[in-house]
Amino acid sequence: MARLYLALVHYPVVNRRGELVASAVTNLDLHDIARAACTFGAKRFFVTTPLEDQQGFARRIVEHWTIGPGADHIPDRRRAMELVRVMGSLDEAITAVRDAESRPPRVVATCAREHPQAVGWAVLRRRLADDSPHLLLFGTAWGLAPDVIAAADCVLAPIAGTDGYNHLSVRSAAAIVLDRLLGVPA
Amino acid sequence: MARLYLALVHYPVVNRRGELVASAVTNLDLHDIARAACTFGAKRFFVTTPLEDQQGFARRIVEHWTIGPGADHIPDRRRAMELVRVMGSLDEAITAVRDAESRPPRVVATCAREHPQAVGWAVLRRRLADDSPHLLLFGTAWGLAPDVIAAADCVLAPIAGTDGYNHLSVRSAAAIVLDRLLGVPA
Repeated sequence: MARLYLALVHYPVVNRRGELVASAVTNLDLHDIARAACTFGAKRFFVTTPLEDQQGFARRIVEHWTIGPGADHIPDRRRAMELVRVMGSLDEAITAVRDAESRPPRVVATCAREHPQAVGWAVLRRRLADDSPHLLLFGTAWGLAPDVIAAADCVLAPIAGTDGYNHLSVRSAAAIVLDRLLGVPA
Repeated sequence: MARLYLALVHYPVVNRRGELVASAVTNLDLHDIARAACTFGAKRFFVTTPLEDQQGFARRIVEHWTIGPGADHIPDRRRAMELVRVMGSLDEAITAVRDAESRPPRVVATCAREHPQAVGWAVLRRRLADDSPHLLLFGTAWGLAPDVIAAADCVLAPIAGTDGYNHLSVRSAAAIVLDRLLGVPA
């Protein structure tokens, strides 16, 4: 089983003018990406934000579905939400993976734009099959800050659309990325 | 270009007890699926519900992003939302495709469960490449009613998860289905 971890980054990301911002946590991001992570066997889904009120909001959602009333109401949702860990920073998430795996993960940034050194889908799929831990980063708002992309070990090729349109939600992008890397179509 | 149409069905669908219900329209379903439809070149995205207040809610969302303030605010969203048509029933959507294509579409139901006569991904991908119109149905709530699945021309194989877990949101499922049928990973 692939040792794939996900992080949904709320800071530092850019807004539509390219300015650095901390984005707000979106309830359905947590649900949709946790469910996709569970479906495809990802190990853990980190939600990173330095804003304490946003950390609290995210933790309340997770607790509702893992130890609160939601856990009995929809047990399948509990299993997905148990993968979520709320973290203050991306570095904390990287440390958590390193502690769990006894070695640092390869950090893979995702980006909707072309990148000159982007890694193709088949290459990353093979690397995951080699059992080495990887942490996939997804940016909220208008995407990961340039510094985060520059600091990653590699950047994954974008999900190319037809006609050059590729404005997927982060929820849709995460689902497609997980399927391309770990899915097995019948 | 594939002649693929999508319908997000709000009635008849089943709830978690298997009872027939009309589900409520969810704002992010419209956004996410319209954006994925636009990314992968689907022709049209129908949102079907017989409930007039729900039709009104869906139309207000679409109008905000196509002719209202949202259209200038995020032009990329406008292009996606212009694919949406709100319909009173699935039959109306089928009729709309037939009128646009001058022939009836093949109606393809999606379902999270295994189906004895399910069509595989590669088969449907080839059929789409043949240029014949197809209408893909996605169920909200706990999925399409059995009668809708029985009346479809075929049922697509489920998105199989690891460990038998496949509780994706309809937003995630639609994104993965579109990518598997029309995507071209680099």
